[in-house]
Amino acid sequence: MKKIINNPENVVNEMLDGIVKAHPEYVKRLEGFNVLVRADKHDKKKVALVSGGGSGHEPSHGGFVGEGMLDAAVAGEVFTSPTPDQVFEAIKAVDNGEGVLLIIKNYTGDVMNFQMAGELAEAEGIKVESVIVNDDVAVENSTWTTGRRGIAGTIFVHKIAGAAAEKGMNLSEVKRIAEKVISNVRSMGMSLTPCTVPAAGKPGFELAEDEMEVGLGIHGEPGTHREKIKPASEIVKDLLDKIFNDIDLKENDEVAVMINGLGGTPLMELYIVNNEVEKLMREKGLMIYRTIVGNYMTSLEMAGFSISVLKLDDELKELLDYKADTPAFKKL
Amino acid sequence: MKKIINNPENVVNEMLDGIVKAHPEYVKRLEGFNVLVRADKHDKKKVALVSGGGSGHEPSHGGFVGEGMLDAAVAGEVFTSPTPDQVFEAIKAVDNGEGVLLIIKNYTGDVMNFQMAGELAEAEGIKVESVIVNDDVAVENSTWTTGRRGIAGTIFVHKIAGAAAEKGMNLSEVKRIAEKVISNVRSMGMSLTPCTVPAAGKPGFELAEDEMEVGLGIHGEPGTHREKIKPASEIVKDLLDKIFNDIDLKENDEVAVMINGLGGTPLMELYIVNNEVEKLMREKGLMIYRTIVGNYMTSLEMAGFSISVLKLDDELKELLDYKADTPAFKKL
Repeated sequence: MKKIINNPENVVNEMLDGIVKAHPEYVKRLEGFNVLVRADKHDKKKVALVSGGGSGHEPSHGGFVGEGMLDAAVAGEVFTSPTPDQVFEAIKAVDNGEGVLLIIKNYTGDVMNFQMAGELAEAEGIKVESVIVNDDVAVENSTWTTGRRGIAGTIFVHKIAGAAAEKGMNLSEVKRIAEKVISNVRSMGMSLTPCTVPAAGKPGFELAEDEMEVGLGIHGEPGTHREKIKPASEIVKDLLDKIFNDIDLKENDEVAVMINGLGGTPLMELYIVNNEVEKLMREKGLMIYRTIVGNYMTSLEMAGFSISVLKLDDELKELLDYKADTPAFKKL
Repeated sequence: MKKIINNPENVVNEMLDGIVKAHPEYVKRLEGFNVLVRADKHDKKKVALVSGGGSGHEPSHGGFVGEGMLDAAVAGEVFTSPTPDQVFEAIKAVDNGEGVLLIIKNYTGDVMNFQMAGELAEAEGIKVESVIVNDDVAVENSTWTTGRRGIAGTIFVHKIAGAAAEKGMNLSEVKRIAEKVISNVRSMGMSLTPCTVPAAGKPGFELAEDEMEVGLGIHGEPGTHREKIKPASEIVKDLLDKIFNDIDLKENDEVAVMINGLGGTPLMELYIVNNEVEKLMREKGLMIYRTIVGNYMTSLEMAGFSISVLKLDDELKELLDYKADTPAFKKL
């Protein structure tokens, strides 16, 4: 295992400290917990957004804590759901009376633990709502999930629901917005290489030198199939076909696109992918309103990418363009 | 070779198109050239900043074109200096009478070709100055360089000289600022894996499963030595010792720090590195004023990182914090 770490058992703790030391103006750690909360001074009464999940997907989710996105991010061990007590602490820390929206990626453990934490908080009189992101069109059900998995489309939920909360919408409105994003976003990914969970010490799967895995999940869960590596143009066409099959998009519809790197993919390749995505979108008559390219929902050092497509309307466009200021996403 | 590309001979061209399609509000391409220039409307008379070099270091340098940083970035083939005619076109495109500063990383080809372009521009009556970034303390001279190499410290030059230009300083002042950054910044890196230039099809060097290369350059040039992988804390100590040996820093000095990923390193590891960097800085009595963590000066898919340390004064602090709005670096 080639990693720049100290003790494999302590990576999450050291990483969280490293994040706080890098961005003290944005985030602080809840003492004794693997929870990052906003450090910037703001006394605004607003709906608070809490997300999180297993670690290893950085900058998700701690990198999105800040103005206009999340109020807290809860970090589990690598590829492992955070426990309910950690999520409960996050909820208590950020609620200011307007209620808390939990943004949960659809994995069995995350759903169970976040919802249990929500119930604990409600028992203490905190208003809690939750939404479950399930944007991955690759496969229904898997070892980790019932239904579709939640992957990089989650960032659009953070951004847009975060703007809604920042603008002062109430809890039911923020939840409505988050659910609209979820119903309008679809994603699919592929990888060239596996990744290694530090505590495991060896890759989660193996791929031959000329093979790629199509449709895999962000924990290395199996995808739809394996095949020989193809040119970027053909890979993109396969992924977009699958996405287009799952969401109703017609000519002149406006969309936002995210080309998300899985951690080990050079930006050069992500931009080459984007070049192909734009061509196919244009052929289909879709209008690209915004494009985001970079590492946003990663799988440690995995080489690969995902494409997310979000169907927009005027309300979503305005919220997508609203100011955000976080370590990993800034919109001026 | 596992890469998400089409034709290995066409990666730079497709990448540049992909960048423009992703960020049309920031950059456009000079038709017929591998040059990205600012696309945002601005009629400000200001010194223009031009940088660039071989491709494969993304987001350097095209990702830094925008308000408060570069006015143009010239992209050579992968790990290959851009030709003088390309740089010359960039200079002509962005000069608005206040003159142009060329920010050149210290590689023989870059220095020669940028300076030749500068002379062509001066012959047409454009005021041109240049600075040469040589922040890498690892080795003096190499196959590619006379003197020290220019690596991630270059981003600090883009940011700070870019702010000086945006504030309306004249060419000699912007050059003075850039030279102050260069004399105050030192960097050093290490890698766990090599990278593969697409047109070459195989890795530039080999490393055993338990080995790392210390002090290597961003084109995979040899470093100071190879050794067995060590814990992050020891790696960081070795790199910082070398940096501290090369720059005069005393207790209570303020510094900016960049933990730069080389392309294939998970953000988790960069933050663990940052955690160690902060500890050693604190032990030495240094005050960390700003920290930047992420992929800024990469080597394709290489796994590894570099540390850059910039000694600050009041003038540099103000310019470092000045507004910047580019695809890869935003400061609100």
